[in-house]
Amino acid sequence: MKKHNFYAGPSILPEFTLTKTADAILDLDGSGLSLMSISHRSKEFIAVMEEAQALIKELLDVPSGYSVLFLGGGASLQFCMVPYNLLKVKAAYLNTGSWASKAIKEAKVFGEVIEVASSQDRNYSYIPKDFAVPEDADYFHITTNNTIYGTEIKTDLDVGPPLVADMSSDIFSRKLDISKYGLIYGGAQKNLGPAGVAFIIVKESILGGVDRVIPTILDYRTHIEKESMFNTPPVVPIYSSLQTLRWIRDMGGVDEIYKINVEKAGLLYDEINRNKLFKCTVEDPEDQSIMNVCFVMEEEYKELEENFLEFASQNGMVGIKGHRSVGGFRASLYNALPKESVEALISTMRDFERKS
Amino acid sequence: MKKHNFYAGPSILPEFTLTKTADAILDLDGSGLSLMSISHRSKEFIAVMEEAQALIKELLDVPSGYSVLFLGGGASLQFCMVPYNLLKVKAAYLNTGSWASKAIKEAKVFGEVIEVASSQDRNYSYIPKDFAVPEDADYFHITTNNTIYGTEIKTDLDVGPPLVADMSSDIFSRKLDISKYGLIYGGAQKNLGPAGVAFIIVKESILGGVDRVIPTILDYRTHIEKESMFNTPPVVPIYSSLQTLRWIRDMGGVDEIYKINVEKAGLLYDEINRNKLFKCTVEDPEDQSIMNVCFVMEEEYKELEENFLEFASQNGMVGIKGHRSVGGFRASLYNALPKESVEALISTMRDFERKS
Repeated sequence: MKKHNFYAGPSILPEFTLTKTADAILDLDGSGLSLMSISHRSKEFIAVMEEAQALIKELLDVPSGYSVLFLGGGASLQFCMVPYNLLKVKAAYLNTGSWASKAIKEAKVFGEVIEVASSQDRNYSYIPKDFAVPEDADYFHITTNNTIYGTEIKTDLDVGPPLVADMSSDIFSRKLDISKYGLIYGGAQKNLGPAGVAFIIVKESILGGVDRVIPTILDYRTHIEKESMFNTPPVVPIYSSLQTLRWIRDMGGVDEIYKINVEKAGLLYDEINRNKLFKCTVEDPEDQSIMNVCFVMEEEYKELEENFLEFASQNGMVGIKGHRSVGGFRASLYNALPKESVEALISTMRDFERKS
Repeated sequence: MKKHNFYAGPSILPEFTLTKTADAILDLDGSGLSLMSISHRSKEFIAVMEEAQALIKELLDVPSGYSVLFLGGGASLQFCMVPYNLLKVKAAYLNTGSWASKAIKEAKVFGEVIEVASSQDRNYSYIPKDFAVPEDADYFHITTNNTIYGTEIKTDLDVGPPLVADMSSDIFSRKLDISKYGLIYGGAQKNLGPAGVAFIIVKESILGGVDRVIPTILDYRTHIEKESMFNTPPVVPIYSSLQTLRWIRDMGGVDEIYKINVEKAGLLYDEINRNKLFKCTVEDPEDQSIMNVCFVMEEEYKELEENFLEFASQNGMVGIKGHRSVGGFRASLYNALPKESVEALISTMRDFERKS
């Protein structure tokens, strides 16, 4: 039976990425060597790294003055690298969920943190709107998409201090105005590649302002200078990421991907609204993520939750159990998830409604 | 033409590891999902993580009181995590090469570093022997195998302070007495798996002694408590590492691997000694690495260096150019390199000698 992969991350990647990676692990471009067994200093891998960085710049229209990095360690390491490199006295953070909270916790190791607003009061089911970012903050940190809670900041904010964004789960889902950001980072394992690498897009001029001594590997300037080759980079995750970037380009770029994303999410939100059994946990459509759709059973059908999970699983749906912080269900509709999978989930919801 | 992969790292891995990983990327154990697209919290991946940790404990006979971790970021991140977690006042380091020097540099960010001995005076071509480790050092750090220079500490040292060892390039090459170590770490990309994950074997009782606030992700206790699942681990590199660990077990364990390693290295060192064109950069056999064999042209044949590289390349040898710090040639004979490749290199050296 065909599986429909709604995992929140690591999550579905294009078939193109999977087959290209599997092929390269057996034999990289007819070289007689495995992708896993070549030096990161080989001409083959240097070409991979360079093309991947160039494609990110091309697809996101990254202006000059910005560097693109691929670093090991994942987004969680960035929670500490960001303040290590940028926090002089105080930083401002928007608290929109568990990951934002974790970023805030790490920043507090390095200085004062001003939480400009939080949606914790209603279990992070909305994006706070009316907040002021102190002009003297060293930077302002946001989490653009909140995987667990299904909320998303869908515009590029205008703020005074450098804007730092964790875009782990919505990078490449829409066009961005990079010039509004000081630093964008994220783990690859949603819209880019397998777990094990983080991407960073950083405006070089915001670096170098802190007095503390930064360990070499945690200093962004190290990696800019060494073009992400200061230490051995995660070769396979970067190779796979390159394949996904090529796939995005061949799909027509992020504008085309965005149209499909909006259509996919629209279909599912419409069904949740129509179906008598379900309701969204995020009420304001403006805040509803196009990447992670969180929904629960209406109060009177609560006891059917386990039954629906079981029924959906029997119909090939994988990974739709909601995060324990929210409960219910979560369907992650990342770039690589085909519209057919959304349609299959909708059919399953309708079938279940009929038999309930 | 068959390629013989002598890269220093990332480097050759068992065919078993390559085919198992490629298969799993297309379809993980008949699940209908790719290894790259499954949640790290799925039962499939939790089983991978648990078996990999258990196999390291089994293969290296790790005593109780030690934890085995798989972390993103590579060994270079450990250069800063080790002092972050362990350096209270001063640490002792043995300087046996470039990587040891890098580790020393990072430790100095956190406190006093005593370099107990260094072989820098003769371009790191030997392992210093007569040194004293201060009893009041918080730990003593060594690099057991020096990939660039071809030297190796082949015994488990007896010292007072906790012994911390970077074993990136010789882990699983021989039996260890783990009880003599406080912490062992290394990047996977030599004897274990593809680049992108570090292994750590740590004695829990040496942790928790520093006063500084450690960022959560840089605190070993975080990862012990969360069983290497605090953040999304590098799923593919860990899966591949598990396959290599199974391969080591099926080869008969590290004792059997060690016998083969000694035989392979012996064959090559013997040929270097016999062949009139070549000489080892490491003179003392006691210090000669069984993992990385470094050699150069004898003075009178120096001008043949490029010719030999070209000739070797034509004969299928890959990655035998020496590191720029040493020059000449380096053949890395990691666990997965078959004896046939060593024999092929030796034939090439003999053929070149005959025609020179």
